[in-house]
Order: sequence, then structure tokens, then C-alpha cells
Amino acid sequence: MTATFDALWTELAPIGRNRATGGYQRLSWSPADTEARSWFAQAAAARGLDVAPDRNGNLWAWWGEPGAGAVVTGSHLDSVPDGGAFDGPLGVVGALAAVEELHRRGVRPRRPLAVVVFVEEEGGRFGVPCLGSRLLTGAITPDRAAALTDTDGTSWARAMAESGFAPERMGPEPDLLGHIGAFVELHIEQGRSLAHIGRPVGVADTVWPHGRWRMEFSGRPDHAGTTRLDDRHDPMLPFAHTVTAARSVAEAHGAVATVGKAVSKPNCANAIPSKVRAWLDARAPDEATLRAVVDGVDAEARRSSVEHGVFLASFKESSTPVVRFDSGLRDRIATIVGGANGPAPVLDTGAGHDAGVLAAAVPTAMLFVRNPTGISHAPGEYADTADCHAGVQALTTTLADLLTEDPG
Amino acid sequence: MTATFDALWTELAPIGRNRATGGYQRLSWSPADTEARSWFAQAAAARGLDVAPDRNGNLWAWWGEPGAGAVVTGSHLDSVPDGGAFDGPLGVVGALAAVEELHRRGVRPRRPLAVVVFVEEEGGRFGVPCLGSRLLTGAITPDRAAALTDTDGTSWARAMAESGFAPERMGPEPDLLGHIGAFVELHIEQGRSLAHIGRPVGVADTVWPHGRWRMEFSGRPDHAGTTRLDDRHDPMLPFAHTVTAARSVAEAHGAVATVGKAVSKPNCANAIPSKVRAWLDARAPDEATLRAVVDGVDAEARRSSVEHGVFLASFKESSTPVVRFDSGLRDRIATIVGGANGPAPVLDTGAGHDAGVLAAAVPTAMLFVRNPTGISHAPGEYADTADCHAGVQALTTTLADLLTEDPG
Repeated sequence: MTATFDALWTELAPIGRNRATGGYQRLSWSPADTEARSWFAQAAAARGLDVAPDRNGNLWAWWGEPGAGAVVTGSHLDSVPDGGAFDGPLGVVGALAAVEELHRRGVRPRRPLAVVVFVEEEGGRFGVPCLGSRLLTGAITPDRAAALTDTDGTSWARAMAESGFAPERMGPEPDLLGHIGAFVELHIEQGRSLAHIGRPVGVADTVWPHGRWRMEFSGRPDHAGTTRLDDRHDPMLPFAHTVTAARSVAEAHGAVATVGKAVSKPNCANAIPSKVRAWLDARAPDEATLRAVVDGVDAEARRSSVEHGVFLASFKESSTPVVRFDSGLRDRIATIVGGANGPAPVLDTGAGHDAGVLAAAVPTAMLFVRNPTGISHAPGEYADTADCHAGVQALTTTLADLLTEDPG
Repeated sequence: MTATFDALWTELAPIGRNRATGGYQRLSWSPADTEARSWFAQAAAARGLDVAPDRNGNLWAWWGEPGAGAVVTGSHLDSVPDGGAFDGPLGVVGALAAVEELHRRGVRPRRPLAVVVFVEEEGGRFGVPCLGSRLLTGAITPDRAAALTDTDGTSWARAMAESGFAPERMGPEPDLLGHIGAFVELHIEQGRSLAHIGRPVGVADTVWPHGRWRMEFSGRPDHAGTTRLDDRHDPMLPFAHTVTAARSVAEAHGAVATVGKAVSKPNCANAIPSKVRAWLDARAPDEATLRAVVDGVDAEARRSSVEHGVFLASFKESSTPVVRFDSGLRDRIATIVGGANGPAPVLDTGAGHDAGVLAAAVPTAMLFVRNPTGISHAPGEYADTADCHAGVQALTTTLADLLTEDPG
């Protein structure tokens, strides 16, 4: 299993890698993403799996005929811009290595198994994370997805069509979903909880509720040299105040808030901007706290916009309520993968995942692999090979247990 | 003269115009800029002028052989992104209309005359304003200019070469400069001084010292959902503090400061940025005040960067000392163009111009045309046609006076 994992990891590693930064650029439907998806289709076929996309662009590799009670595992291959090597790929490569290990062990499945690769998990190109799983489950409408655009103005529908998919066929797939008896996703931890307690593998308990809000500050474009300060309607000023407020409001509530993306128009050094668009990412332990954080930031943004004669429009781009993973599945997995040190630890996370979207529809679990630095969504993201192997081992044990269970 | 001006204005108006915003996108060496330059070459040739570029990409249209004591007028045709119709074109179209009017009046020049179109006046593509006039006068080295890049990473040298120029020939042209006896630039006012006093045309006195500084805030890229606030090195936070500080420091010193351009990397909503690059534009009535403003903003930026564990590097991209236009020329022009209401008003400006660069080398003057709103560098930039005509009339009178003077 470890040799298979290492070999597959080495095959996938160069695809979409930026040699200058060491990070990955696998935006959905880009050449690098297409190459990674082709790599997956070939690697799965080579292991005897039947590969086919669903109507939303997610890839499914089946062991056995698709049918009731299927055990599904997998993750995603797209990245944020200049993202890490592990976020997504660990769960895909791990799934293929686990399938090979099940073969080797001679496991005789009593249920079908599938490995899935979800598309646009990061929202790194079209702005809405977990888009493939949201479309599959009906958590986003096909019309809204079709109209999403990337920074060049290319729509999701057009990018999908250019990759050979029919955007008019997008939408929920109740038959496919109805086949899933359990979904398990293996993923690198994106914090340091496991490192802190010295365990290589953990099991997810909840995903913090989180969301993304777009704020558009519209001012009046003017010459930077000749417009008196009092005459200005400069949208950069309330934007800056909002960035500062997001940090202090989140701090006061024990939450996190981030403004990682912002775009000034026309973005010219000697012109007062006409507009600044900014995105607020906020996450909190519970929904009331999240609401308080977002309302608090919005109130500060509005107050400062009024002060500077700037018009503010806010839009909710995505939001995900708290996810509580299936407690039965969680405890069962924690017990069987725990080993000599007792049950595997159970963790909360602030990161969204396709598993979090699927949890609303089917029994779902996540396995996390230790991240010594906690760094994620960046080139420095890292996990020890031995810990990755332990994660795949835990996934294999979990899948074997689920596959041999009476499907009745 | 008014008919010629109106006809030329109408010819030039569609080139590079964005129908959606009404603004102009004529970035240097872009197709729209090339089209505008070709239009100028044809319009000048049709008026009997000999058109030739200099070694830095500026276009010169001569009436008579180039030689000692030449009177030169003109401006630029490039724009900031989504800029206005008047900033630059008024001085070029006005110059051509004035030349035709001089012909019509039968003026017999005792000196050569040239109309010049300077390249990359705005710095809208390569970041350094007045690049053509700076190269001509030696205010920037050819090596530094060659290495400037646009946001796509295309260098000035490459863009120039693709337009048929030899970048290795760039540099100061003392012979050409030595021919210039006087330079006069007609320009829309970029503030509301003339509107305030109810006069259509004014004469420039000084240009405020000004400059552009690039600040690079380097933090640590991380996941926006899983990185605790205390563990972050988020460069967006000291950047935001700096924007706020720039405003308050400028206010305290009676100066202006603007952050109109900023770029976050990787600019992803769910990733803490690795870097934020921002540009500070600052202008003040005198150099000591400008230095105090820039030092004050820099100190605040450094303090906040240290607080957030972010590394700050600052670079001066351009700076222009105070420009005092030739006082003899200024008073002479104010008198001859003033009309019934007495001498034309004399104004300061916070905007940089090629005339400001040339003023270091040759006797230079500027004529301003009333701007009722003061808006500039934006689609709403506007001057009444009657005021444009009054400006061209003033330019014609000035040129006639200078051309018939004894070249002695």
C-alpha cells in the first residue's frame, strides 16, 4: 500500500506545480486541472475501476456496479491559487491506494465502492467552494452556478462546455446520491490539533459554520493629485476600515475573519478608485456567533462608508451551516482506526469540505492526517509521509469495515 | 479654428473609448494608443507638418526645419485606465488647431515650431509617469525604463520593440532638447480653481512636488478557516492600517495622499495573503512637507507591520521636485491671453505633467482650461466646448507671439 501511495503521489506531484513557489495552480477546468483529472481516470482504470463523470463534472470510479448502499471515498484535485500539495490530493491518492490494498487483502465487498473526485472544491476560480458537491446535492441551483464567473469574466457554464460537458444538464442527482450508503473523506488537517496531542490521525466531529460575503464599496473616481481630501469619495478608506474591523470583531467573538481577496478599480496609482470589491471569509464555533461577527463587520463597513460618502452593497456568496458528522460513523471509525493508544482523537475544524456538503444528505465521516505546521492553502502545506501512510491505513481499515458490513 | 478643433476632436474621440463606462483605455503601446498615435501622424501630415518619432517613442511634428529656438507645444494621448477624454488630448488637438489658425492668419514664423506627443505620460501601464519626457531629458536612465513591467509582466523594452522601436537606442537627446526655445502645454485643469473664480483659462505657476512609493507587505500564506488569529502573519492588516494612516497624515500636513492601487497575492477569499503590494501617491505644497508626509505614513506602516509579524519593503518609484515654471514666460502669457478681465489667473497644481519634466531643461509654460467639476482621471472629466476653444485661442496667441519674436 505504501509503495502504491508513493508511486501515485509522485505521478501526480508535477501537475500544476509552480517551480518558482513550490505551490500548485490547479484552477477548475484549467489545463492543469484537466491533466490532473485525466491522470485520475487512467490511474483508476488501471486498478480495474469504471470511471465516468456525473452531470456536474465530478468524476466517479466504481468498483462493482453502482447500486444501493455504496461506500464512497475521495476528495478533490483543484487547488486555491498557489495552494499546497496535500489539500485534496491526499484524499484522492489515498483512496486509490486504499482500493489497491483492499484488492491485495482479498476483501470481498458486500456493497459497491466508488472513488470520487469533486470539481471546484476550493472555489478558487469561480468563488463558490464545494461547487461540484453543492450541485450534486442541490445546495446550489444550476442557474446560479452557470452564471458564476472567474476574474477574466469566463462563466462556469462556458468553462464547463469548453471541457466537453453540457451545462444545461447540471443539477441534483438524487439517484446517484440515493446509492451512497456512506461517504468517507481523507484530508490533511488544516490546523495543529493533531500535532499538539501527538497523534497522526483523527476523526472529524463538526465543521464550524462559515461563509463568504462580497462587499462592494463604490466611490467617485478622481485625480489623486488635484482632488482635495474633503471633496473625495474614496472607497479605499472604508474598505481599509473594514479590514481592521473584521479582525477586531472576530477576536472579540472567538471566531476568525479574513479579507484575503480585494480588487480596486481601475487600480491605478494616481487615480482615486471608483470601486473596491472585497471578500470577507468568516467562521465561528456556532451560527449565532457567526451571525454576530458578520453583522458587526457589516455595521462598521456601513458606518465608515457613510462617513466617506461611499456607497456599500453587500452580498452573501456562500454560507454553510454547522456540520455535525454522523456520530455513529464517527465513533465506529475512531474505535477501529485508533490502535494501541485508544480511539482516534475527535476534532472540530474551521475548513469547509465536500464531506460537509454531503453530510446533509448521507452518513458522512472525515479522517484527518497530522499537519506539523498547520499551514494550508499555501506552498508550505506539508504532512510527513509516515503520517500520510497512517491515514491511508486508517481509510483502508474503515472501507474494509464498511464494505463487508451486511448491506441489509 | 473652432471648426478645425471640433473636427479633430470628433475624429479622435472614439479611439480607445469604453462604451460601457464612457472612459478611455489608451495604455501606452496598446492597440488603442497605436491607433491614436497614427491618427496624430496623419492629422499633422495633412497640415503640412513633418512627423518623426524620437529615439524614446515621442512623436514630433515640425513646421520648418528643426533648429535653434524652436517653439514646441503638445501633450500626450495615453490615458490612465478608464481615464477621461481631455487629459492629454486637449493639448494635442489644441496644438494642431492652433497651427492651422497660425497658417490662416498668415503668421510668418521666425523660429521653427513643433507639436509633440509624449509617450506614457500617465504611467498607467508601466508605473512611472512622464516616461517619454523623462527619457528625453535624462531624468530616468534607459536601463531603468527598459526593465519597467506592466501587470502582465511585459517590459517597457519589449512593448517598445513590438511597436517597431529599438529600445537600445533610448536615452537623453541633448541635440533635440537644445533646439527647444520654449515649451507650452495646453491642459484641462484637474481641480476647480478656474471654476471658482469664473475664468475659462489660466496659466500655471508651480507644480507641487510629488511622488509614488511602492510598499510590499510580506506575510505568511495560510488557510483562512483554520489558522488562529494569534498565529497569523496577515499582510492585509498593516496594509489597511497604512491606507487609514495615509489619509490622516496627509490631512494633518495640508497635503494629499492616495492609495489607489493595491494587489493581494494570491488574492483568494479563503487564503490569508502571502503578500499585499500597494502604491502611495503623495503630493504637498513644498518638499519638506512632502517628506514629512511620506515619512509619517512609512512610520505607521512599519509599526503596524511589526505588530502583525509582517515584513515591509518600501521603494520610491518616482519623485518630482517642486516645479516653478519660467516666471518671465508665465507673466508674458498671462498678459497677452488675459483679455478684457485683466491678466489670466496664475495657478498651482498637484498634477504632474511632461511640461513639469521639461521645465528643468527649457523655458516652459502651461495653459489650463476650466474644469467645472474638477473631476479628472475618470470618465466624468469634462470641459465646455467654449472653454476648450478659449484655451486653443490662448495657445494660438501665445505661439504667434513666441514665433514672431526675434530669435536673436
